[in-house]
Parts: sequence; C-alpha cells; structure tokens
Amino acid sequence: MNFDKLEISAERFSGDLTSLAELVDDTRSGWTRTALSETERAGRDWLMQRMRAAGLEVRFDVAGNVIGTLAGRHNGPYLVTGSHIDTVDGGGRYDGMAGVLGAIEAVEAMAEAGIKLEHPLRVVGFFGEEANEFGLAHFGSRAIAGTLLQGHLALTNSSGDTLASALATRADIDPELCMQARWSPSEVAAYVELHIEQGPLLEHHGRSIGLVTGIAGAQRFVASFLGRPDHAGTTPMDRRRDALCAAATLALSVEHVAHDNPGGVATVGNITVTPGASNVVPGYAELAGDMRSIDPTWLSARREEIEAAAREAGGDRFIQVSIAWPSVTDPVLFTDPVQRVIASAIAATGHDPLPITSGAGHDAQEMAMLGPAGMIFVPSHDGRSHCPQEHTELGDLTIGVRALVEALVAFDRSPTG
Amino acid sequence: MNFDKLEISAERFSGDLTSLAELVDDTRSGWTRTALSETERAGRDWLMQRMRAAGLEVRFDVAGNVIGTLAGRHNGPYLVTGSHIDTVDGGGRYDGMAGVLGAIEAVEAMAEAGIKLEHPLRVVGFFGEEANEFGLAHFGSRAIAGTLLQGHLALTNSSGDTLASALATRADIDPELCMQARWSPSEVAAYVELHIEQGPLLEHHGRSIGLVTGIAGAQRFVASFLGRPDHAGTTPMDRRRDALCAAATLALSVEHVAHDNPGGVATVGNITVTPGASNVVPGYAELAGDMRSIDPTWLSARREEIEAAAREAGGDRFIQVSIAWPSVTDPVLFTDPVQRVIASAIAATGHDPLPITSGAGHDAQEMAMLGPAGMIFVPSHDGRSHCPQEHTELGDLTIGVRALVEALVAFDRSPTG
Repeated sequence: MNFDKLEISAERFSGDLTSLAELVDDTRSGWTRTALSETERAGRDWLMQRMRAAGLEVRFDVAGNVIGTLAGRHNGPYLVTGSHIDTVDGGGRYDGMAGVLGAIEAVEAMAEAGIKLEHPLRVVGFFGEEANEFGLAHFGSRAIAGTLLQGHLALTNSSGDTLASALATRADIDPELCMQARWSPSEVAAYVELHIEQGPLLEHHGRSIGLVTGIAGAQRFVASFLGRPDHAGTTPMDRRRDALCAAATLALSVEHVAHDNPGGVATVGNITVTPGASNVVPGYAELAGDMRSIDPTWLSARREEIEAAAREAGGDRFIQVSIAWPSVTDPVLFTDPVQRVIASAIAATGHDPLPITSGAGHDAQEMAMLGPAGMIFVPSHDGRSHCPQEHTELGDLTIGVRALVEALVAFDRSPTG
Repeated sequence: MNFDKLEISAERFSGDLTSLAELVDDTRSGWTRTALSETERAGRDWLMQRMRAAGLEVRFDVAGNVIGTLAGRHNGPYLVTGSHIDTVDGGGRYDGMAGVLGAIEAVEAMAEAGIKLEHPLRVVGFFGEEANEFGLAHFGSRAIAGTLLQGHLALTNSSGDTLASALATRADIDPELCMQARWSPSEVAAYVELHIEQGPLLEHHGRSIGLVTGIAGAQRFVASFLGRPDHAGTTPMDRRRDALCAAATLALSVEHVAHDNPGGVATVGNITVTPGASNVVPGYAELAGDMRSIDPTWLSARREEIEAAAREAGGDRFIQVSIAWPSVTDPVLFTDPVQRVIASAIAATGHDPLPITSGAGHDAQEMAMLGPAGMIFVPSHDGRSHCPQEHTELGDLTIGVRALVEALVAFDRSPTG
C-alpha cells in the first residue's frame, strides 16, 4: 500500500461540506435538512452526483438509502462505511455529513494514492437517521439491517398520518417494498463509521480522535399526572391537586438519580401543562424524557428509581400518575477484535485515541446486527450538536478521514468476525 | 316594607340561568361565553331584553356594559348591583351569571312584593370581567370606576393585535370613547354584588352564605430561565445547563413558600420548555404564576422569597434567570360600616354568614373606588369554578338573592360612606 502517498484533501472535503450545507431549508434555523423533506431529497440527489464523480457506482435502494459501490480486487463480502445527510430541525453542518463526505474523501484519496482494496466497498448515505416526526430514528439503516418492523410503518405523527403514507407521498419510497432493502450478514465484511462526538469529552481531554467502544441504550419515558384544575385564587394550598408540582418533583428526581449514579445520563426534555393559565391550578401535566447508558444494569436500576419517584411525586398530592416507556433500545458494545483493529488504525495516523462510549444513537448500532462494526469520533467544539453552533475543526476531520482509510485497509486485510 | 310578601322565585331564576346557558360557544368545552366573541354579544342582547322584561330602562354604555335602571321614589345617587355574563374558556354556568340574574330576580321579587326603593337602582352586566387574551380583567367595571388606563388599550394578544383594535372590530366598542363610561363617585350610594364563592370554604363550614370582607391582591409573575440546549445523550450531567430543572425548582419553591405561610396562596400555572424534545437538554423555560392575599405584608414577604428562590434555582445550574411581575393589584378591604349593613341583611334572612375573603378578583373591587361596596357569596359545590363542574344549589342561590334584596333595602335606608 502507498500510505506515504495518501493525502487527505482538506480543501476538497471542506468544499463538499460547504456545497451540501447550501442545500438547507431556509425557512428553518441552522442547517435544516430533515428527512421526508424536499430539501433532504435534493441533498440525496447531490450526494448521488458527488459519489459518481468520486468514481462510485451509485443507486438508491428501496428504503431511500444512497449506496455507492467501489469494485475491489475480488468479489465477496463488502467493506461498508457511511453515515447520513439528514439533520434535526435547526441542526448543524457536521452530524452525519462528516461520515458521508469523509467516506467520499477517503475514496478520492485512496484512488489518488493508488490504494486498491481487495474487498468491494459500499459507501452508504443512510436515509432518515435522525428521529423523525413519527418518533422513529435510523430508518434507512434499520431497513438494511433488518431491524425495521411493520409496526414502525404504522407509527403516526401529530396529524395522524402514518409513516407508511409519508414515505410514499413525501419521499417516493414504497412502504410495501422498503423491507426488501435488507442485506444478508454474508454481504458485510466490516462496517466502520466516522462521526462527530456530539459531546465535550474529546475536547475536554485534548484529543483529536476517539475510539468508540459502544453506543448507549436509550429508554424514552412519558409520565402523565392527573390532578384537578382549580381556581388559583380561591383554592387553599392544602386542598389542591397540582399536577405541575408533581411533574416538577419528578423532573428533579430524574436529574438527581442520574447525577448521583455515574454511568449514564437522564433528561426531562419537556413538560406540558393543561390548562396552562397562570391563574388556574394545573389539572394535568405530561413530562417526556429519556435516559441512556452503555450499562444495562444502570438502565434497569434507574428505571426502577424513576418509576418509584413518579409514584412518590404523585402520591403526596392526590395525583394519579402513570409512566410509560414507548421506546427502548439496548446498548450496543462493539466487539474487542473490532476495537483492536480501529485502535491500531488510529495509532497509525500518529494519534492516540480516547476510548469513548456514544450517548447518541447511530446507524452503526443497526449495522452491528449484520457483522463486525465500529466507529471513529472526531471532536465537537464545546460539545455542541443538533444546533447551528455545531462545529468540528477541519484538521480534526482530516485526521478522522485518514483513520477511516487506515481502518478500511486494516479490515480489508483481516475482516474481524 | 312588605318583606313578609317577598318571594324569591327559584323557578324564574333557574329558568333565566338555563336560558342564558344556552347562549354558549358549542365548539368549546363547558359553558363558554368569552368577552369579544359573537356568543357573548348574543348574551348581552339577551340580557338587555331580559332586563326590559323586568321593568328596567336599559342601555349599553360606551364600554359595552349593559345598564338597567329602576326609578326610585327620589332622584339622587344610585344603588348599584350586578356582575358579569362573560366566562372563561371552558367555564361554568354560575360565575358572574348568579349576580346578574340574581339582581334581575331581586328586581322582579321586589316589584311583586310592592317594595319600592327611595334611591334609583342600577343593575349592571359588566363587560369582560374575566381576564381576556390581552391579559386584562374587569374591563367594563374599570371603565365605569375610572381604573381603565390608556396603557390597557395598547395591550396586545399573542397575534400582536391591540385590545383597542379588538374592541372596535369584535365588540363594536369605540376605544376612543370607552373611557367616557366613567361614573362620578357622587352617582353611587352603594354597590353590592352577589357572586359564587369559587372556593370550598362555605361548603366546608356548612354555610349557605358568606359575607365578603375583602378581595385578595393578586401579583402575577413570569420567570424565564436561559440555559443551553444540548444533546440529551452526549452531554454529561455535570456539564448541563438545564433550564427545565431550574424552572421545576422554582415551581416547588413557590408551592412551599405559600404552604408554609398561611394567609395567601401562590400558584405556578404553566411551564413552557424550548425546544421541548425528549432528547434535548432544555435550553429555555418560562414559568407563569400568581400569588394572592388580602394581606399586603404577606404579599411583599412572599415576593421577596419567590425572587430569592428564583435566583437560587438558576445559580446552581449556570442558568440566567429573570423574573417579572407584569400585573399587580392591591388587596381591597370592604369597610366595616358596609360589612355591618350586609351582615345584618344576611341575618335578616335567618342565615348566619361566614366572613370570608375572596381569592378571586371581582368587579366589586373596581366599584369600591366609587363608594361603599360589598359582596355576598353563595357556596360552590366542591369548591369548583372556571370549569364545567361549577355548581351552586338553587336553594343557596335564592338565599343569596333574598340577602341581596335585604342589603339593597338596608343601603336604601342608610347608605354608608
């Protein structure tokens, strides 16, 4: 291999990031390109052209994924890399894009350096990685990995539309066919994904690159508090059934429980109050949040504590409480052999990787169902993500792409099962 | 006087309550007749006809109030009674209506019993007593009492419309002229208003009627918490600036402060969270509430405590907090001479009045600016009000009307300054 000739072009990579960042919804803040939008469709069309220019053979699959293939010296299972180009509403320029455009830069740089892989390579722009208005994340990678379920297609948004109908009318995806995007495990030699950290740890430790050891499991919860709406001026304090105070108590318990138990995070992201007038004792409140950890015992212990706290928050105030867990994903631990390969690849770039778990979900956790899978992180300035301030230094991005090439080449030599 | 002939007709009164309860907005829950709506205008037209049928000379004034006049044996200052027929959204059938229809029943019953007052009497259906979408309550009584300010007309709703424009386009009230509804204090001999309690105390003490000693001052507050939105999966607990947790802390402090200090109530009625997604650490939260007491020192002490609690709630979490008090009304204490007249009037009905302060605001607090003013309360079942479950027994309502007649006659004999 001609690694001494390998040059990652910061200019080309940066140009691609800028070009894609122009395809955003101008009516929303930040760099918004949400799945199921015209803008995101334009982004995927751009991606298809860009992959072709990089010498890949490109197709849309039946689940909306953009798949670019590079022939290897031999047939056989594919090395796979990629990420996504959709964003959250009001998101940034790097989450997902770093991995897709980084993979294209890797292909360009390998070709220029005369590096030819034994295995064929697939570069995937996964469709709809971010949680959509139907509450489903990782649509495209689920379809490929076989973790997309019929029940997911029946999920509804706040207007009562199903995901199935939105796929058909807004993304030109046939819900009857999208399951057929599934790959066989025998097609995959290894999957490796470059992504921004979306948290502060790499920067905090002064590192340019992270070796991802696993992806946290996430459990979403919704707690509802039924009290009684009463006149705020005429109802004595000791006769109230104040649903907001009960919800506030649980919100603080959730913070407390996670604060006191290292190994995970827990968040209450929203409280909604009914009727929500300053002069009415709140009769109903609903609270939504999630907790995440790489450690299943942490998750089960915290879940018990949060449920107990919910019961307690309501009981003091004659509030009827219920708590539901509408979405639970298990932690994914990348295997030791995969971690060793990626650690060596990073070391070959002259950088010392920080082992790090991902608190955010990624397409890699779906792809791990098909075969050896791992991830490389690059730093997020100030830990910001899912916001316009999201930023990663170009120097760190190019280190990430170099590590990605090293990892692909290492997996090419010895795929790890 | 022919009090032995005085008969309050429960049937007629109940029929009036039922007729008016038919004029509601069918698209809203409960019995909704909000000011500035077509429905409320229909209610005032009905009221005008009903007053005429009771023998009153009726007019709309320039502030939308319906004023029915009954001549007395002499000219001179007016005895005044009344209340309002507008409701909150999703309100009930008694708040306000009891006092307006009770006054009409009083007029009918006095006429039938041959009771003729020395003073002329004004029965007023005050326009827009409930807090409207512009945050203003007591519109009509403020206009009459001279407590309506030019600044009130410039208040805006969430669409950015001014109250002035809404008055003109939705209620046919000329904002340039409405200030001219003002009465001179010399026009008022005394004001007495029958109203439902809207709280649980009369029922709790097994009484049918209450003597209102005063109306609580109310201070509305809005607290805003500026933190930082971050990814809920990737941001460690100790690096968060969670605005919702800070707001929840203040909500519980507000409850605590009022609970521990008898003499008033304090309520957080709403919390709104931005961005409000279960997977984002809340970057901004806003909290709205009020506190009420008849005791100015209670109010000032609690205000200091709530402001200190707000600073503390934010400081722990690197949250920028600000608290504002957009609306402050002072407590109104009804004078001892007025209370003595009404207490005697109630005693004449054979009932023992419970002295009670009103936690809710009323037109009477504006009318108290013009001269002697007082109120009579009848029980609210289970303390419920501003909701469809609002209920007062017909028997209690008729006791209230009898007490109103006794009070008007007593003031007629000796108005109390």
